[in-house]
Amino acid sequence: MFKVNDNYLKLAGSYLFSTIGKKVAAYSAANPDKKLIRLGIGDVTLPLTDSVITALHKSVDEMAKKETFMGYTPDLGYEFLRSAIAREDFKTRGVDIAIDEIFISDGAKSDSGNIGDIFSVDNRVAVCDPVYTVYVDTNVMAGRTGNYNEKTGKYDNVIYMPCTKENNFAPEIPKETPDIIYLCFPNNPTGATITKDELQKWVDYANSVKAVIIYDAAYEAYISEDNVAHTIYECDGAKTCAIEIRSFSKNAGFTGTRLGYTVVPKELKSGDVSVNALWARRHGTKFNGAPYIIQRAGEAIYTEEGKKEVRSLVDYYMKNAKVIKEGLTKAGYSCSGGVNSPYIWLETPNNMTSWEFFDYLLEEKNVVGTPGSGFGPCGEGYFRLTSFGSYENTVEAVERIVK
Amino acid sequence: MFKVNDNYLKLAGSYLFSTIGKKVAAYSAANPDKKLIRLGIGDVTLPLTDSVITALHKSVDEMAKKETFMGYTPDLGYEFLRSAIAREDFKTRGVDIAIDEIFISDGAKSDSGNIGDIFSVDNRVAVCDPVYTVYVDTNVMAGRTGNYNEKTGKYDNVIYMPCTKENNFAPEIPKETPDIIYLCFPNNPTGATITKDELQKWVDYANSVKAVIIYDAAYEAYISEDNVAHTIYECDGAKTCAIEIRSFSKNAGFTGTRLGYTVVPKELKSGDVSVNALWARRHGTKFNGAPYIIQRAGEAIYTEEGKKEVRSLVDYYMKNAKVIKEGLTKAGYSCSGGVNSPYIWLETPNNMTSWEFFDYLLEEKNVVGTPGSGFGPCGEGYFRLTSFGSYENTVEAVERIVK
Repeated sequence: MFKVNDNYLKLAGSYLFSTIGKKVAAYSAANPDKKLIRLGIGDVTLPLTDSVITALHKSVDEMAKKETFMGYTPDLGYEFLRSAIAREDFKTRGVDIAIDEIFISDGAKSDSGNIGDIFSVDNRVAVCDPVYTVYVDTNVMAGRTGNYNEKTGKYDNVIYMPCTKENNFAPEIPKETPDIIYLCFPNNPTGATITKDELQKWVDYANSVKAVIIYDAAYEAYISEDNVAHTIYECDGAKTCAIEIRSFSKNAGFTGTRLGYTVVPKELKSGDVSVNALWARRHGTKFNGAPYIIQRAGEAIYTEEGKKEVRSLVDYYMKNAKVIKEGLTKAGYSCSGGVNSPYIWLETPNNMTSWEFFDYLLEEKNVVGTPGSGFGPCGEGYFRLTSFGSYENTVEAVERIVK
Repeated sequence: MFKVNDNYLKLAGSYLFSTIGKKVAAYSAANPDKKLIRLGIGDVTLPLTDSVITALHKSVDEMAKKETFMGYTPDLGYEFLRSAIAREDFKTRGVDIAIDEIFISDGAKSDSGNIGDIFSVDNRVAVCDPVYTVYVDTNVMAGRTGNYNEKTGKYDNVIYMPCTKENNFAPEIPKETPDIIYLCFPNNPTGATITKDELQKWVDYANSVKAVIIYDAAYEAYISEDNVAHTIYECDGAKTCAIEIRSFSKNAGFTGTRLGYTVVPKELKSGDVSVNALWARRHGTKFNGAPYIIQRAGEAIYTEEGKKEVRSLVDYYMKNAKVIKEGLTKAGYSCSGGVNSPYIWLETPNNMTSWEFFDYLLEEKNVVGTPGSGFGPCGEGYFRLTSFGSYENTVEAVERIVK
């Protein structure tokens, strides 16, 4: 008699954004005349850029001819893309990453969920609180956590590192020793960053206790301050303790195009076992590569023209971030984020819970945001707004909220 | 201190096709003047068809405009594609599949590897021998098997169902009772099929012991005989015991374009737990959808024009299958497959092992095939040739082999 993976039954609720989607759909159905502005999910709104579109059309044409048709992709991804990444994302930052340390994937969400496959279920996991829920949920599914505690809003056997106003939304080294530490800077959902010096302390700590850091740098393109690391490998010793996950979604607008990559340095070892080799094996066995045409699209963002276009996308969204942050701050809201990040993290007014504020914004202001408590118990009383809307909608949303 | 998933350390060798790739690369490097013909890996060679190319260009143009740009895809995939699948792949076969039983993915390899996530590690797995290695390797990685036994070439705690000339390459109901049964018809690697009546027996058996069948129908388009089921749901009771995995790779040539889907019927339950709900949860948490443009490309194969084009691709490859099968049979080889399948499964001559015959074909004939033993111990003494090459190359390869 077959048995299901009953770790799934521990999951507290449906995936946050599915719940939001259902609430919004129900409201829209009941109020078809209302024009909603969505500053909730981290989905971008600007179209793909010229270089990317050109690369897509060109590679689609290649797929139409027998002479240039491309079948199965190489296990790690095409070398043209991995070389561009090594050169533009790392070499320019003074970091040497070999192309066989780069694994092309269909996105950072898949990678941050799948990376757990290569680690034992016995590892103790540390996450920030609030946190991108995928890190926690995929560890629950894998059996790396205990049960969900309704009272605390936490899973047993997980080390939660509170990130609140009191510590400037920066996690502190936990008292209990973790084996796997998930860090995301610039942070989703708080929009916070830490300095390179602070990140170095995490790297030193991980090396000292032989923990591995899963470093999600999906929002790297939004860094505007000088003292923030663009990759964890800018820190000394990171190659012996860190895996870095990167995305094409938020810089180049690939949320519906799907491309990402993960760096697993060859120096990262557990005893004699190369973690790079394990990930290569997983990648080659449970995945069959990102589409050729999408990898060509990814390559295009590393051309001179492509880089300018990405810069202009990021600038556009950061202008929105400024509109939100300044507008809400002026109206008396307490906001953080928005400087090295497309996310504004605000305290809910009048002691509203995060979901109360969600309902209030949806029903009274017709603005969709994301309740902070959906990201973990320390997110309660906070709310996330994203700058990924259009400029016009962002301005209007802020006007509606402050009115 | 972090610990790796040491189930990975049980894996016997590298992924079969990686090993072949390395051998071929080494031979080519040493013999740059030799023209190799590759009838090994199941990769297609004909380009994408007109309807697909048109759909890709059109949807790329949509991605270039703000008004038509598409971001994150719906969790299960776009409804336009799931509706087309429900209508064309099932309704036409007299089978009702609801669109929320269809999950769009980046391919059958990912799905057949990932599907294990939602089942307990305690399940006992049954596989055909020989078998598509992904089923076995991903179960090893998940910890659902014991160690690899060098002597038998098998993993402990796996039920192997021999498929040899003696039983016409059709597995028999195993003596030990499995919880999860992997079946693939038309079969990779043997090219064998079973009749719908025979498949019904498997469905009845699975229901009687409450096992789940993971049914890989990636080669469905190659079925030419009337008494073979195109989907397992043609069998009575299959919805309470079977998950079906489908691919766009071998029918529409999407090996480098990446698209597949999995059907998880709502009737499939473990006690009160809906397996469909578990897969939906996994899909929404560890995956972020196939690219919009690729889903539009997939939709195109279900138009009248698209269906004709797929038929013509399949006919082309089946003509090659005939060339191989008739050519080798005439020369005294014992061959099966090639009737409902693009694969020809032949006995190695002169008592050569599968790898000896691989080396012989590579070095003496400059033809690349796949050693049967790479698919399991009962594949020893057999060899797989695929019909996915060009017609000209296929003819030449057969001439070289029989010379």
